[in-house]
Amino acid sequence: MSEQNMTNNKIAGKQSILFENPPLILSGSSIAGKKEGEGPLGSFFDEIEEDPMAGGKTWEDAESRLMKRAAEKAIEKAGLTNQDIRFLIGGDLLGQLIATSFGIVSLEIPMFGVYGACSTMGESMALGAILVDGGYADKVIAITSSHFAGAEKQFRFPLGYGNQRPLSATWTVTGSGAVVIGKNESKDKNKHKKKEKNVVIKGITVGKIVDYGLKDSMNMGACMAPAAYTTISQNLKDINQLPLYYDKIITGDLGSVGKDILIDLLKEDGFDISSNFMDCGMEIFDQDSQDTHAGGSGCGCSAITLTGYILDKMRRGEWNRVLFVPTGSLQSTVSFNEGNSIPGIAHGIILETC
Amino acid sequence: MSEQNMTNNKIAGKQSILFENPPLILSGSSIAGKKEGEGPLGSFFDEIEEDPMAGGKTWEDAESRLMKRAAEKAIEKAGLTNQDIRFLIGGDLLGQLIATSFGIVSLEIPMFGVYGACSTMGESMALGAILVDGGYADKVIAITSSHFAGAEKQFRFPLGYGNQRPLSATWTVTGSGAVVIGKNESKDKNKHKKKEKNVVIKGITVGKIVDYGLKDSMNMGACMAPAAYTTISQNLKDINQLPLYYDKIITGDLGSVGKDILIDLLKEDGFDISSNFMDCGMEIFDQDSQDTHAGGSGCGCSAITLTGYILDKMRRGEWNRVLFVPTGSLQSTVSFNEGNSIPGIAHGIILETC
Repeated sequence: MSEQNMTNNKIAGKQSILFENPPLILSGSSIAGKKEGEGPLGSFFDEIEEDPMAGGKTWEDAESRLMKRAAEKAIEKAGLTNQDIRFLIGGDLLGQLIATSFGIVSLEIPMFGVYGACSTMGESMALGAILVDGGYADKVIAITSSHFAGAEKQFRFPLGYGNQRPLSATWTVTGSGAVVIGKNESKDKNKHKKKEKNVVIKGITVGKIVDYGLKDSMNMGACMAPAAYTTISQNLKDINQLPLYYDKIITGDLGSVGKDILIDLLKEDGFDISSNFMDCGMEIFDQDSQDTHAGGSGCGCSAITLTGYILDKMRRGEWNRVLFVPTGSLQSTVSFNEGNSIPGIAHGIILETC
Repeated sequence: MSEQNMTNNKIAGKQSILFENPPLILSGSSIAGKKEGEGPLGSFFDEIEEDPMAGGKTWEDAESRLMKRAAEKAIEKAGLTNQDIRFLIGGDLLGQLIATSFGIVSLEIPMFGVYGACSTMGESMALGAILVDGGYADKVIAITSSHFAGAEKQFRFPLGYGNQRPLSATWTVTGSGAVVIGKNESKDKNKHKKKEKNVVIKGITVGKIVDYGLKDSMNMGACMAPAAYTTISQNLKDINQLPLYYDKIITGDLGSVGKDILIDLLKEDGFDISSNFMDCGMEIFDQDSQDTHAGGSGCGCSAITLTGYILDKMRRGEWNRVLFVPTGSLQSTVSFNEGNSIPGIAHGIILETC
């Protein structure tokens, strides 16, 4: 432990990393479905796809097309080409990540496939930031997607079955979000040119799988809340801060049920996040008029809320420090039908303006 | 591109990374199924599980149990406890990675879930080496698994159906392998104590998704060979070497059909690997007596061949430089049934003794 080449200043506490040269989010893209476009955040998205098939033949094909467009849009907004991106880190909800594989194959970018269910945007951004901070890549892209119809078909019932959904159920977001992450070389160059602030990834908190034994796949917010609690609580302990250190603490898709559980669990640790908490799933749809019950969910939910809405708020300087915590529930239909519980995982990304 | 803090000496060519402080493989574990234990490599494995259910209730549960044992064994062999391992990087073939999630939840190690189909051991070792080399973790564990019955149930037919398999089909290996990766702090300390050589991860070549349009899920070797070709060819170009730089170039599970395609494709680039090539899938079973057709496959195939056989050969000094290239085919039953092709991916790991 006394080696000279140890660089333990990056390691913060039990689960966190604080970057020496916080990587910059060069661009973010958001391709949203029709329903998401009609929701409260509609005006923040880059593109709204009115066709649920996105011009494709199947739900899975549609999702792949959304992901390809999100990747291309993010690369274009960063003023880059595919050849400038050294690695892609991405994944989706579908078995064997087929939305990702077929979506990004034509980009020909070396890739790390990741799966963290709806926490995937956090996982891919965490690994992307590590690759850039560590000098393994100048520029990477982190990406994920989800599609309401593909997710219903895979995890619950085919849409044609017309089943009823309990009020604790969430609505999988149709959309894909991507961020291009690069070295922060623009500090001085852009300060006088641009009115917008830059956003960097200051650090990460890598999640653990947490299983409280819950089994209700129609109440995933409750299944994931313990994982969000564990990651947020550990983040605050690892960096030795209180919740108000952040302008916002933002979870992925806990929805209205999971939100209350999270706030209660954190209170037991002495952390009160009730005044600066937000959940992407509760922002993306209008719960009164859009009939989405407990809120939005899916990898795309936190991804396009980040790339559309959260980054916009930060670039304008309304929020300067955000803990972004996408949340994932780790069941499959096989594990569910075999009577297993639904474990959760959540990864924390510390975003700061500069 | 002229910033002082750029550390581009790690970046080699288009897809490769060469580590400044090559991380050490502190230990490797191999938990094999009965059929694998009866094969030519049987005596190299740490444990052979005779019960196909591994004491569990379902095939998926069995795979999770094998993975948990592989993780515990690797940590024990490294003389460590769970608390010493900062991150786990792992995944498996099952939809939503349920073998991994339920297998490792009790270890309580912060984790990155990855999916690269049967290339997963390469992907998890690549990311693990980055985390250690970059100073983000002192010790990590990279792990994967597969189970013959679980894979057949998911990808092809339930075993009870008793379908016939063409000769180009491979046999999914039942087993789990893990490596603990840490900083190489033992150079001088162990040189005089141990007769065995140490094995380090000298570099990696991150794979691209490659799709030649093949669609036969009973001939996955042919589907994956173009990906293996792309990664091996790029590795040699990135580090400016010829194939004989390596004592062995070892693919994951191309089998007898894929092997011939790979050798032919590389010849077109002027690379002859016919004299130093090995495929884990062709080593793990006796094709004459074990009726496994084109060879073994699955995430566990390359994983336990590495941790059982390859690391043993290297520690004894028989091989001193190996390019380990696990190969994955990226289809799901949904993508296959919808008529899609089967893209492949392969990640290269440069192993060296010291």
